[in-house]
Amino acid sequence: MTEIEPLRIGVCGVGTVGLATINILQNQSSLVAARCGREVRVTHVGARRDHPDHNYGDAKVSRDVMDVARDPDVDVVVELIGGTTVAHEVMKIAIEHGKHVVTANKALIAEHGNQLIALAEASGVQLCFEAAVAGGIPVIKSVREALAGNAVSEVAGIINGTANFILTEMSNKGRAFEEVLLEAQALGYAEADPTFDVDGTDAAHKLVILASLAFGAPLSIDAPAKQGIQALTPEDLDYAKTLGYRVKHLGIARRAGGRIEMRVHPTLIPEDKQLAGIDGVLNAIMVKADAVGELLLVGPGAGGSATASSVCADIIDIARDHGVTGYPLGIPAGDLTPLPVIPWEEISSEWYLRLRVTDRPGVMSDITQKLASRGISIESLVQKASKEGDTDVPIVILIHAVPASLMNDAMKAVVALDEVQSDVALIRVESFD
Amino acid sequence: MTEIEPLRIGVCGVGTVGLATINILQNQSSLVAARCGREVRVTHVGARRDHPDHNYGDAKVSRDVMDVARDPDVDVVVELIGGTTVAHEVMKIAIEHGKHVVTANKALIAEHGNQLIALAEASGVQLCFEAAVAGGIPVIKSVREALAGNAVSEVAGIINGTANFILTEMSNKGRAFEEVLLEAQALGYAEADPTFDVDGTDAAHKLVILASLAFGAPLSIDAPAKQGIQALTPEDLDYAKTLGYRVKHLGIARRAGGRIEMRVHPTLIPEDKQLAGIDGVLNAIMVKADAVGELLLVGPGAGGSATASSVCADIIDIARDHGVTGYPLGIPAGDLTPLPVIPWEEISSEWYLRLRVTDRPGVMSDITQKLASRGISIESLVQKASKEGDTDVPIVILIHAVPASLMNDAMKAVVALDEVQSDVALIRVESFD
Repeated sequence: MTEIEPLRIGVCGVGTVGLATINILQNQSSLVAARCGREVRVTHVGARRDHPDHNYGDAKVSRDVMDVARDPDVDVVVELIGGTTVAHEVMKIAIEHGKHVVTANKALIAEHGNQLIALAEASGVQLCFEAAVAGGIPVIKSVREALAGNAVSEVAGIINGTANFILTEMSNKGRAFEEVLLEAQALGYAEADPTFDVDGTDAAHKLVILASLAFGAPLSIDAPAKQGIQALTPEDLDYAKTLGYRVKHLGIARRAGGRIEMRVHPTLIPEDKQLAGIDGVLNAIMVKADAVGELLLVGPGAGGSATASSVCADIIDIARDHGVTGYPLGIPAGDLTPLPVIPWEEISSEWYLRLRVTDRPGVMSDITQKLASRGISIESLVQKASKEGDTDVPIVILIHAVPASLMNDAMKAVVALDEVQSDVALIRVESFD
Repeated sequence: MTEIEPLRIGVCGVGTVGLATINILQNQSSLVAARCGREVRVTHVGARRDHPDHNYGDAKVSRDVMDVARDPDVDVVVELIGGTTVAHEVMKIAIEHGKHVVTANKALIAEHGNQLIALAEASGVQLCFEAAVAGGIPVIKSVREALAGNAVSEVAGIINGTANFILTEMSNKGRAFEEVLLEAQALGYAEADPTFDVDGTDAAHKLVILASLAFGAPLSIDAPAKQGIQALTPEDLDYAKTLGYRVKHLGIARRAGGRIEMRVHPTLIPEDKQLAGIDGVLNAIMVKADAVGELLLVGPGAGGSATASSVCADIIDIARDHGVTGYPLGIPAGDLTPLPVIPWEEISSEWYLRLRVTDRPGVMSDITQKLASRGISIESLVQKASKEGDTDVPIVILIHAVPASLMNDAMKAVVALDEVQSDVALIRVESFD
């Protein structure tokens, strides 16, 4: 349609995202060409093994993905392998060979992004990773471009669909964690090794990327404090609901003075907040910024086709020479200053504390005294009826904002009481007011 | 910070959005400069009258906005006057003088966008209007850039904050339309003349713009069928709630075969759908597209600072030469083909029908017979208790999907019955499944 040369794409990795990306570029080729003002053509596919059912069109196929990264007939290398070893090598080689790079790999960007972005800047190529955070939701473009005139103060969201699916099932149907995890694996939501989904690692990777863009700081892989969802019980989700809250696994990055909070953990959210209503495998990210106020972006956080939508948006940006490399718009990696991170212990919030106590006169007074003597005040306290045949009763306490250090200290003192069992739940509460 | 010349901005109109834009560019000048790789400087302000409390920095001030549009020392003209007369002239003159243009003016783009975009293309300048739809929500960037690899099938949303505020108050507090409208005016949500907010004109303008971007068709100002919120009563909002629905004023643009539905009207939405929970002055836009599935973007649809956030994003895009002119990415205005619009009468949906009838044996059978004889089937029927002293009883009927033509015909036949009063409410239901 024009004299401009086609943009030649090399795709490394043909799992669900890789195949969906190839399909979009092939099936929507005229739409993509019209929007780019040039043809976008998949010329080389790197796949470790044969996939007789895949259709790569006219593309050359190599077993060694490094052949794609080095191919002089490839302009853009799309890394959809996953992991941080081969994928890292592919990205480095591709950049060193002067190719633009696109990836959906959150672990890779969170761990090695600083190096890769500096490398891309030095090589004058574009490095894009919209698909690395929240799959099909254009949160990176929104934070980086649409909010470019804003100072962002907070990013918080549900950024792991597997964990959200599990919590939703546990909360709505009273099912146990292990049982729902098995179903999530059967449905293809969770990986064969679901560790990173349930222990918060995957969400932490995404939060690291979001925080870097939002606050204009280098990627800081070790910054987030991290709690997973493994220890949550349907019982606690149910108590939270009774109190007017939902429990969501959130990533939160928040400016506080010259420092930032970064944390990933189960969180009680008031049920009338929009984040509280995001169920199933959906992702949702809330952004607070000085000019715009508050934005919420909701959509599919995973899935081959949704993630490929973001990969293709990056490719189209590159085809139009609108790709953004790395950090906040226009600021070279070397010019960014790390922001000090507030330790978990110092971060203040309200708390949900669930105890199990022997129902004996004076026990409540003992517990509240332990809290009061540390200056911790109680917002509400509910003594639940004990289950049949159970000699212990659950007590649920909502506690006004105090730092984790103080809360942990008080909890230890409470658990040391004879009447209090060691089975406790302590969960942060965020009202987002 | 670089050898690149500053980008010189001329702002026409210093209402809340104009002033907020100037404030952001002044107060965040180093942030904006870093992100653009060049300084962005407000050099000329067009204001019809004196505002002693405004601070325009070093900018020249002119009474005649055309002086800004013609100023050789201005690179980008930002039109924030509103209306379609002077604003239209300012845009034309600015483009003809080779300036990039940014506007928040939905009426202007919906009515004269085809002409202005063609003019901008011919002049090789960028024309941006992110702020024209849904204020601070980056919906235009999302549809145009983030979904560039998608075929969009539907855009639906709450795109008038004033109407949503009024409906929320009516629904939650049982207040009457006129009373809430007065409050909305006092709060500054509604214009002195609120006609366009309540009769659907403003929402129709925004829908025209969204549909053009989503479906790659020219702007079609006359396409949307339009109903406002003036005729809604707290009583009907309450019945809807009892049935598990919320009533929202929606703009809906949907592909159906080779044609599109375009309509703006009060709509019953199942209460578990996210759009049903968007309350107050918030805006929310749902986009369905083939690759990504479904996205929802929520945020402030109006307000000086939020709207200025989008205006500044456009300015920053232009400063980086990433601005997009007009329609779907890269496709010249002249290459677009209008999509035929499905007339309102042909558009099928479920319906909410509220009647008021004299409570006499056989009346229900007469009504249902009128519906059944036209092949209209009833999903549910609720006879409400009559209010004290009222001889009539309300009847609420949910009707399975039929076209408006058939529904109107049936309704006329029903109202012609002796026992049925002329006070009826007929509202479309959308399940968004």
